[in-house]
Amino acid sequence: MNAPRPNALLSDRDVDFQLDEVVRVSSLCALPDFAEHSRETFGLLLDSARRFAREVLYPTYRAFDLEPPTFKDGRVLVHPKMRELYPRMVELGMLTAPRPPEVGGQQLPLTVHAVASAYLMAGNLSAYAYLGLTQGAAHLLEVFGTPEVKAAFMEPLYRGEWTGTMALTEPQAGSSLADVRTRATPAPDGTWRIQGSKIFISGGDQDFTENIVHLTLARTEGMESGTKGISLFAVPARRPQGDTLVDNDVRVAGVIHKIGWKGIPSLALNYGESGDCHGWMVGPPGRGLACMFQMMNEARIMVGLNGVATASVAYHEAVAYARERPQGRPAWAKDATRPQLPIIEHADVRRMLLRQKAIVEGGLSLLVAAAFQADLASHAPDEEARRRAGLLADLLTPVAKTFPAERGFESNALAVQVHGGYGYSSEYLPEAWLRDQKLNSIHEGTTGIQGLDLLGRKVVAGGGAALTLFADVVGQGVGRARAAGVESAWCDALERTLGEVCELVTELGARGMAGEVELMLRHSADFLELFSVLVVAWRWLEQAAAAKEGLARQQGDADFYEGKLAAAQYWFAAELPRVPLLASLCRTGEDSYARMRPEWF
Amino acid sequence: MNAPRPNALLSDRDVDFQLDEVVRVSSLCALPDFAEHSRETFGLLLDSARRFAREVLYPTYRAFDLEPPTFKDGRVLVHPKMRELYPRMVELGMLTAPRPPEVGGQQLPLTVHAVASAYLMAGNLSAYAYLGLTQGAAHLLEVFGTPEVKAAFMEPLYRGEWTGTMALTEPQAGSSLADVRTRATPAPDGTWRIQGSKIFISGGDQDFTENIVHLTLARTEGMESGTKGISLFAVPARRPQGDTLVDNDVRVAGVIHKIGWKGIPSLALNYGESGDCHGWMVGPPGRGLACMFQMMNEARIMVGLNGVATASVAYHEAVAYARERPQGRPAWAKDATRPQLPIIEHADVRRMLLRQKAIVEGGLSLLVAAAFQADLASHAPDEEARRRAGLLADLLTPVAKTFPAERGFESNALAVQVHGGYGYSSEYLPEAWLRDQKLNSIHEGTTGIQGLDLLGRKVVAGGGAALTLFADVVGQGVGRARAAGVESAWCDALERTLGEVCELVTELGARGMAGEVELMLRHSADFLELFSVLVVAWRWLEQAAAAKEGLARQQGDADFYEGKLAAAQYWFAAELPRVPLLASLCRTGEDSYARMRPEWF
Repeated sequence: MNAPRPNALLSDRDVDFQLDEVVRVSSLCALPDFAEHSRETFGLLLDSARRFAREVLYPTYRAFDLEPPTFKDGRVLVHPKMRELYPRMVELGMLTAPRPPEVGGQQLPLTVHAVASAYLMAGNLSAYAYLGLTQGAAHLLEVFGTPEVKAAFMEPLYRGEWTGTMALTEPQAGSSLADVRTRATPAPDGTWRIQGSKIFISGGDQDFTENIVHLTLARTEGMESGTKGISLFAVPARRPQGDTLVDNDVRVAGVIHKIGWKGIPSLALNYGESGDCHGWMVGPPGRGLACMFQMMNEARIMVGLNGVATASVAYHEAVAYARERPQGRPAWAKDATRPQLPIIEHADVRRMLLRQKAIVEGGLSLLVAAAFQADLASHAPDEEARRRAGLLADLLTPVAKTFPAERGFESNALAVQVHGGYGYSSEYLPEAWLRDQKLNSIHEGTTGIQGLDLLGRKVVAGGGAALTLFADVVGQGVGRARAAGVESAWCDALERTLGEVCELVTELGARGMAGEVELMLRHSADFLELFSVLVVAWRWLEQAAAAKEGLARQQGDADFYEGKLAAAQYWFAAELPRVPLLASLCRTGEDSYARMRPEWF
Repeated sequence: MNAPRPNALLSDRDVDFQLDEVVRVSSLCALPDFAEHSRETFGLLLDSARRFAREVLYPTYRAFDLEPPTFKDGRVLVHPKMRELYPRMVELGMLTAPRPPEVGGQQLPLTVHAVASAYLMAGNLSAYAYLGLTQGAAHLLEVFGTPEVKAAFMEPLYRGEWTGTMALTEPQAGSSLADVRTRATPAPDGTWRIQGSKIFISGGDQDFTENIVHLTLARTEGMESGTKGISLFAVPARRPQGDTLVDNDVRVAGVIHKIGWKGIPSLALNYGESGDCHGWMVGPPGRGLACMFQMMNEARIMVGLNGVATASVAYHEAVAYARERPQGRPAWAKDATRPQLPIIEHADVRRMLLRQKAIVEGGLSLLVAAAFQADLASHAPDEEARRRAGLLADLLTPVAKTFPAERGFESNALAVQVHGGYGYSSEYLPEAWLRDQKLNSIHEGTTGIQGLDLLGRKVVAGGGAALTLFADVVGQGVGRARAAGVESAWCDALERTLGEVCELVTELGARGMAGEVELMLRHSADFLELFSVLVVAWRWLEQAAAAKEGLARQQGDADFYEGKLAAAQYWFAAELPRVPLLASLCRTGEDSYARMRPEWF
């Protein structure tokens, strides 16, 4: 097996560029909530995350991939290294960094936390996943829990003593949560008795903490069917009883043999087989799905970060390999007496690497922008600014979740391809990241679901308010790019394409208003794709502007900035022009798959 | 594990459609070489291949995937089932079917053999791969071997007693065969002594036949460097000595841990460690690569068939799953008291399945068309017809190799996606086919190499003669389609796009003539993609014509034909319009990756 390359995972230079030169993260310190912070304090978390990811996490990655959890005597035993890794990740502050001091946090911007976490995900995504889930679960309890529930469950989660899960899916209720059947019955002591089965529960059992809290959707008796009858419950694996923890009747019913993310088990769980599973309601009755959406939205951003991280680590390995591996000569000068070239000198290899770069760094820029809006949504001083940022963050969420998943998979496949026959072997790591990446288009809402969310809710919500705001920020980006001397053809193309997409949304929205919902939503997957290409074009224009500004400062680093401009060029030449074709499918309501009948396949 | 579905692999109805209604395979019986055949005799091979693939091969697939070959005491032990499967595949006649009776064959058209082999590949691609390699090796000996070499090596291969391999790649010589270092030294007895190392040798060792013949490229001493110093040798694992076989000093140096095709080992081999490895030259000295190209071209077609087969089996599983799996309700009618729909009723699932269908059946149609031209190239009575068909077959080869590999990978990923969370587990088979498919863009010439071959050789060869012939056959297809009443918009679009591509080739060719070879070839990968989309559009137009003809006959089967028309519609609405964008990248010589420097990544 090849040794991990310590400078891989993510490019530090690129991460700093996105933070300091593209979104200018220091500007957040002007917000009262972040007043005690500075770029230096941001750097502390970043630096320790980088170091830890490279020196500690990355060297464990392949071992986790090769030695998945085992199931023995009803318990799941995960890789023994987790006993050491989990407390060390907690120690880094990753669990609570963006939370306020009241719950032990540092009140750091999500923007900073997001990129720090991307390093850990790139190093070993399964190891980080336990922490990401715990963070989401604890935050849900922080927002919706009663003081008693917080003391009992949130605090040990935030202290890193226990871990958390999200327990939504059931065999008959995956994309369709309205079909949840797990039931909750009130008990005289004010808690609930839970009974039912969940499936695909990541981290649903492990042996490195003494307890696990499952944030569980269940139907309360007598409530109506559909999503409105569903409430949210904290269901610990072991429940507090006096000073001790006693078994809470949650059983592992089976282990899914996943093809990636092998370090964290995905489990089928049975609740209340002996009728003794206690749950604590979180948030109002019947509002379980609404509450859970907070965790799901956070999870979607986390999936996007994972997609970027997984594509990034493979991209940097592919670049390093292409620089080292000699093979062949130029197609127009095949003199075999000359030494072979490193394959990065072949146009086709550079084509593959540049496409990876465009996806990886465009994706990172997208995630940073989404996190930045989420920070403003929570911390901007005036309410209107918070509302606007919230709309933008919501609009960007399905894109931030899907683009890295779908195009990241393409990028990961290219990393395998760059490695040639070696890439097809498990002696090299790219094949493992390719397997890992495939999950991201499936979990936390499939790509199809994200398309419906984007077109059916986000872009048309509030009469298209979010889209108008988006057009404003793109306009600001174009202004910056023009001022910096970015190719005006790119600026024009982005403005023109944005205009076309806004018109398209107006047309589609009108169909929705006219009751033609099927027609409106027919090409939601194509719409998601075209909107993603557009959003990433915006991110590449912003990066091109920052690169031009950097080159104008003439402080060295020209190689870095030239690379940025070449990747932006690729996006504007080869990707943005795809939008009109996809838009025309949406506009005409092209009906090949709409009219396709099951018996025709 | 789910039980194999006996009606999966390929659709019999579609295979018959491609043969009988699209290319009209019976017309081949008018050629003297096939005069003794009829559609009925074609059907005998097809029927037995179908039955064997479904009943015998497919049930072994997952076992082969889960229990890869092991390496013990210098020998590779493959799945014990191969001992039974190999002779049974030979018994089917698959090894020699397209060869003449002189070597034990049935002189069947390649077109028939190709689709028969696709069933076996869909059933268990690794098991078939031993036979495919043996066939290619034996055919190479048949064409280029001396009578002695044929008697010694070809005959036992064709009898199915031994297996064959192609031994080209070395650690420093993969895409760059000019760098082959394995050496051949003449011995007094007229044979050669071989010394060197090969890598990625599929089937390079196994324990189910008594011998293996490696068709090996090696450099003869004193010959010049580059490809011209390379000759071809038959190098058996055990060489004939009197009536017995003795060890021929070919050693397994290592096993590659592939991520798919797990039933056939990929090996590093050392030749002549003890100086006692005998080789028999095949074909003229210094012409090794030229001879080997016959096997490589056959192998490329076989890779294309594999790509189609691997995408096909996954597609049919996905359709079956989507018909059975209930989940959710329409986005515009989410009443949870109504029963769930099978997911095939969701537009997004039909979108994924229709795209798979378009790729799988478009790919199959492409391979059938390529094989049909190959049959004409070998068996047309007049020389000019043979020459023309040969040019067309050569032109189609890089497309037939690459389209199923690249788009098939997309199709296989969609099959995983249709299965949702279950698709991400090894409890279901789509993940295994996804892994299998990835090899097809790498082996037998990467996608990058195929692009160079297509643009640098095939389309511009002979002053563009092949392209002109291609335009003719497309024109015939358009004529048929118009007569059958196919949408004239599709016919017009195909003609227009073809015209644009021909103009593009003229422009690019002129650059090559002007010595601007780098500029001409810069977007060869994009050219390969656009040309593939165009070729498959031709195949979909032919299928649409046959479907219209079928509907006009009103003999039932309307569901099948309507499905064909919907898939054709998809291709003309969503795929063919991609060509102009890709063409403009070629035409403008868009230079993002050409000017990208290694230090900019």
